[in-house]
Amino acid sequence: MVDSQTQFARLVVVGVGLIGGSIALAAKTRGIAKEVFGIGRNQERLAAAKERGVIDFYVTELSELSTADLVVICTPVNRIAKDVITALDALPADCLVTDAGSIKESLVHAVEEAQPENGRFLGAHPLAGSHQTGFENADPALYNGRLCVVTPTSTTHPNTVERVEGFWKALGMRVERMSPAEHDRVLAMTSHLPHLAASALAGLVDEEMLSFAASGFRDTTRVAAGDPDLWTAIFSENSRQVVDVTQLLIDKLQLLCDAISSGDQHALRQHLAEAQTLRRRFDQIHSM
Amino acid sequence: MVDSQTQFARLVVVGVGLIGGSIALAAKTRGIAKEVFGIGRNQERLAAAKERGVIDFYVTELSELSTADLVVICTPVNRIAKDVITALDALPADCLVTDAGSIKESLVHAVEEAQPENGRFLGAHPLAGSHQTGFENADPALYNGRLCVVTPTSTTHPNTVERVEGFWKALGMRVERMSPAEHDRVLAMTSHLPHLAASALAGLVDEEMLSFAASGFRDTTRVAAGDPDLWTAIFSENSRQVVDVTQLLIDKLQLLCDAISSGDQHALRQHLAEAQTLRRRFDQIHSM
Repeated sequence: MVDSQTQFARLVVVGVGLIGGSIALAAKTRGIAKEVFGIGRNQERLAAAKERGVIDFYVTELSELSTADLVVICTPVNRIAKDVITALDALPADCLVTDAGSIKESLVHAVEEAQPENGRFLGAHPLAGSHQTGFENADPALYNGRLCVVTPTSTTHPNTVERVEGFWKALGMRVERMSPAEHDRVLAMTSHLPHLAASALAGLVDEEMLSFAASGFRDTTRVAAGDPDLWTAIFSENSRQVVDVTQLLIDKLQLLCDAISSGDQHALRQHLAEAQTLRRRFDQIHSM
Repeated sequence: MVDSQTQFARLVVVGVGLIGGSIALAAKTRGIAKEVFGIGRNQERLAAAKERGVIDFYVTELSELSTADLVVICTPVNRIAKDVITALDALPADCLVTDAGSIKESLVHAVEEAQPENGRFLGAHPLAGSHQTGFENADPALYNGRLCVVTPTSTTHPNTVERVEGFWKALGMRVERMSPAEHDRVLAMTSHLPHLAASALAGLVDEEMLSFAASGFRDTTRVAAGDPDLWTAIFSENSRQVVDVTQLLIDKLQLLCDAISSGDQHALRQHLAEAQTLRRRFDQIHSM
């Protein structure tokens, strides 16, 4: 499965939480990396991750490493740009850098501003996750069969694109290329807006109503149990696109509201049928 | 478990789909009814339900029965009022009637207008369901441990309340009393609004975006795969309350949108944290 093209002697994972831990475990399990270094701020947590076999070695600063072949930044979205730039600055010119963050335009822009001639960074967003956190819940199969969006630009070196795409594919993922802006527009609709809506819904309910909520409420609001800091950062980093799609949702809800209050059952039914068709299409696509 | 108080010699289920079928199976399995009659419009389907053991006997019209002890109306919400009134008219004065519909105020109002002195009907809403349909998917355990809201009014006879509550309890449910209006207000928030929001979200997405949607989209929009006719009827029967809560959701989304576009991360984070607390409370309540 793994040829020399997709092998990395030293893989460095910055941020050894659920995502970084799952990438580290998958890379070790699949023989993609000879050794995996974990980098984080909390030495005790890093020692525990090593103890558990998630990483082979750890340091608390990238600058402590003299060499690496691939660095994957798995820190929260509002820290990724700084960590990518640090990695590009600290490591030799043959070391490639990628990330696992859910926002791409502001990140790619910040990296290109700081390192305009670089070409060694390829933004990536592996589309899988979990409401769990911490390397204790890391799962080497988390990314298997899932989609990874990568966002090369005119400044990304072709060798970087090829090698980093090879890394994500070697983890078992399908890779699709998009522009950073297109990625953020699509994810605003498919991920950020559902989260904002779930959170708005969950926040509206009086506590004493909760015992009258059943499986519809449970599923529709599930993601609202997610980390407020993480999602504040996501909405803030992708604010323009999130505001645009939220306005579309508000308009759609107002349309539905008008159809309900005016008794226009035909329009209401037509909308519900369209939504049903799209939702069933989602199940078809994802069961393939 | 079942005493003479909760036994019914002849139970009649009108509408033998997933809900009616599950109630019929549970009543048979638990020895709550000596015989279960199914009533529907499609003789072939009724024969198949009998063949499968979901019901013992069937007729296509309530008027074909001369006697019954309890009739449970499990037809779509926009047909329940008519079916309740038909049952009260067709059957002797010792036969009680209940239903399993998700809207109560318009139903109770229509029944009390048609039969002001009756007292033999108790509106009920067993809070469980499935996105599946048909008696083929009926499950005798569907209601076990779940909540049933009953909506007695000043016109409901105390014996009706006691006997019908006993029936739902004998199916394994906890019973809570509410006024019909209060029921509809609470369910608008906990059930109808999540469905409308899920449907609005699913209807906004371009088909080519669906492969970039992951578990957040999947769960938040799951209920949008439900039957458009059923939900057109629910929104229409509870239009006033649904419009009110939809307006609250629109206002909340606008507030969040404003916080995001003005960069007010503190307000945004506070809202997300409140929603997280409520959503976690839901999990606590429902895991008890």
